[in-house]
Amino acid sequence: MINLSIDAFGGDHAPDAIIAGVALAAKKRPDLQFLIAGKEDEVSPLVARHASLGGRCAFVDVPDRIPGDMKPSQALRQGKNSSMWAAVQAVADGRVRAAVSAGNTGALMAISKLRLRMVEGVHRPAIAAIWPTRTGFATVLDVGANVDADVDQLIEFAIMGEAYHRAIHGVAHPKVALLNIGSEDQKGHEEIREAASRLKDPALGLTFCGFVEGDGISSGEVDVVVSDGFTGNVALKTAEGTARLVGAFLKDALTAGPISRLGALIASPGLLKLKARMDPRAVNGGVFLGLNGLVVKSHGGTDDIGFAAAIDVAARLAGSDFQAEVAHRLSIRPSNEVVSDREDVTGVK
Amino acid sequence: MINLSIDAFGGDHAPDAIIAGVALAAKKRPDLQFLIAGKEDEVSPLVARHASLGGRCAFVDVPDRIPGDMKPSQALRQGKNSSMWAAVQAVADGRVRAAVSAGNTGALMAISKLRLRMVEGVHRPAIAAIWPTRTGFATVLDVGANVDADVDQLIEFAIMGEAYHRAIHGVAHPKVALLNIGSEDQKGHEEIREAASRLKDPALGLTFCGFVEGDGISSGEVDVVVSDGFTGNVALKTAEGTARLVGAFLKDALTAGPISRLGALIASPGLLKLKARMDPRAVNGGVFLGLNGLVVKSHGGTDDIGFAAAIDVAARLAGSDFQAEVAHRLSIRPSNEVVSDREDVTGVK
Repeated sequence: MINLSIDAFGGDHAPDAIIAGVALAAKKRPDLQFLIAGKEDEVSPLVARHASLGGRCAFVDVPDRIPGDMKPSQALRQGKNSSMWAAVQAVADGRVRAAVSAGNTGALMAISKLRLRMVEGVHRPAIAAIWPTRTGFATVLDVGANVDADVDQLIEFAIMGEAYHRAIHGVAHPKVALLNIGSEDQKGHEEIREAASRLKDPALGLTFCGFVEGDGISSGEVDVVVSDGFTGNVALKTAEGTARLVGAFLKDALTAGPISRLGALIASPGLLKLKARMDPRAVNGGVFLGLNGLVVKSHGGTDDIGFAAAIDVAARLAGSDFQAEVAHRLSIRPSNEVVSDREDVTGVK
Repeated sequence: MINLSIDAFGGDHAPDAIIAGVALAAKKRPDLQFLIAGKEDEVSPLVARHASLGGRCAFVDVPDRIPGDMKPSQALRQGKNSSMWAAVQAVADGRVRAAVSAGNTGALMAISKLRLRMVEGVHRPAIAAIWPTRTGFATVLDVGANVDADVDQLIEFAIMGEAYHRAIHGVAHPKVALLNIGSEDQKGHEEIREAASRLKDPALGLTFCGFVEGDGISSGEVDVVVSDGFTGNVALKTAEGTARLVGAFLKDALTAGPISRLGALIASPGLLKLKARMDPRAVNGGVFLGLNGLVVKSHGGTDDIGFAAAIDVAARLAGSDFQAEVAHRLSIRPSNEVVSDREDVTGVK
């Protein structure tokens, strides 16, 4: 059995979509049990509606919810009785293997850092996203835990991302690259060039492939793409927006006239497969890396299907050895690094 | 008549694709004349092949070409007899209204800055890209002239981009936004937040809409998206990669079986329209803003159709009042700004 905690009051469509997502995930994986954090009198009737959840949910009754626009520092001060806090605390207490929340990202990161603490040797956690490519999936990090990253942090992100990708996708030697604005050695920020030269060190044990440009993420040429959180977040959102734009153009094209509509109808099995492949809900679930405990962040606007996908990511991670893998990799990292300790966005040291 | 200079030896497929592109553009616009820069004995036979170019080309015979991997500083020292230099020099000399090159971006920017100089009040030039959206086209800048931008530069980019968008698309009051990782006021780098607060100043005369996230670029919610050059370049390339990925998925879907293939055949008029709409060549042409002279950068890997599109951008700009518009807007900018003067990537002050 794998136990997961659920922030029932995080996300735009909470708690209805959250509980419906839990029910979907429960149907798919009979080995999951859930600790539902939130106002029990509001969520238990929702849980009762789903036969698949019978006997598989426990509750942590807490009155508060963290609003989407609350600052991380405020969430730390005022959020102790919130559903988000309770979900993370359950990981810290060892009651569950992982927490899943669709709530405020900054608040979730701040609370997670405070309650779970960072893995020894990690100075900033990162959020890793799953990115569809021509050949499967890439791991992209950081996609928004931080607004910047220095050389040491980029190297930590590379180590964590590589271990994570191996644990999740079973790739023995994931190819790692740094996101840059050109593939030549002299391109980009000084931090990136310095990080590239250090990532070549064989002692790190990474298959480092140098720089990749924005269009190299989805081409599948590498497995792990490392970036500062600002650039990574913009890239991720830009890709989502572009996929939606192309989808809208495709819809226009296939409804432009009766002949196109007929063709689309006939081709609908293929088009439905395309729709499933492009469904952003299928790749929902940003994983917090670098913490002593598993936290998965779902897209805030997600519905039940997307939330179930985030639960699935958490369940797969909970069943893998990725945390031991990350800790091991960080421990064998060459120790000649001067690690900075600047304060990050969440205000938590 | 509008005169344009052409760098015949810039780009991966020069000079063949370049001259073929000039011929295509010449057919479309009978009001264009061309000054072809490069080895005359190599390019004049190519020109002679195209009836549309009869009597419409002059030549600047120069022996060198700037390689794609040459550093900007090296191009400045060694590039004086290159096709790129000659094309830019023709703008500086007033022989042509604009230069078009598919060559090395950094070198083209460095040479352009040296020969054309920056507009009074501009401290860094920017490259503006045309970005397809749900409702038409957005202008995104900077997409790679610089690797960073401070507050003053972001404001200059906003002023230049807004004037450019108005001149090209005829929108009276383009909506301007800053690219960020959240739409709330407290999100992002300090520079971006400070720039946002200053862009609200009514004295600037801008319709400033605050922050936009990556997925807001293609949604069409704003007209001008302002970013540092690193993030803007990653966003642009990521969008290109995503469009290609979705195109490949679509092709897979429509060739998956005989029925899907039949449907695709019937829907082909609509699908061809989609293909045209998604053709990256149609939006080829990054415009250098902030210089005393017009330079348009074509994608290096472009073919004749893409290069013709870049020529079309140059021709439209040459016929507009956008440079006067930019100069005017910069001159009325409130003068309470402390402008920094850091060295940029090209090494040219």
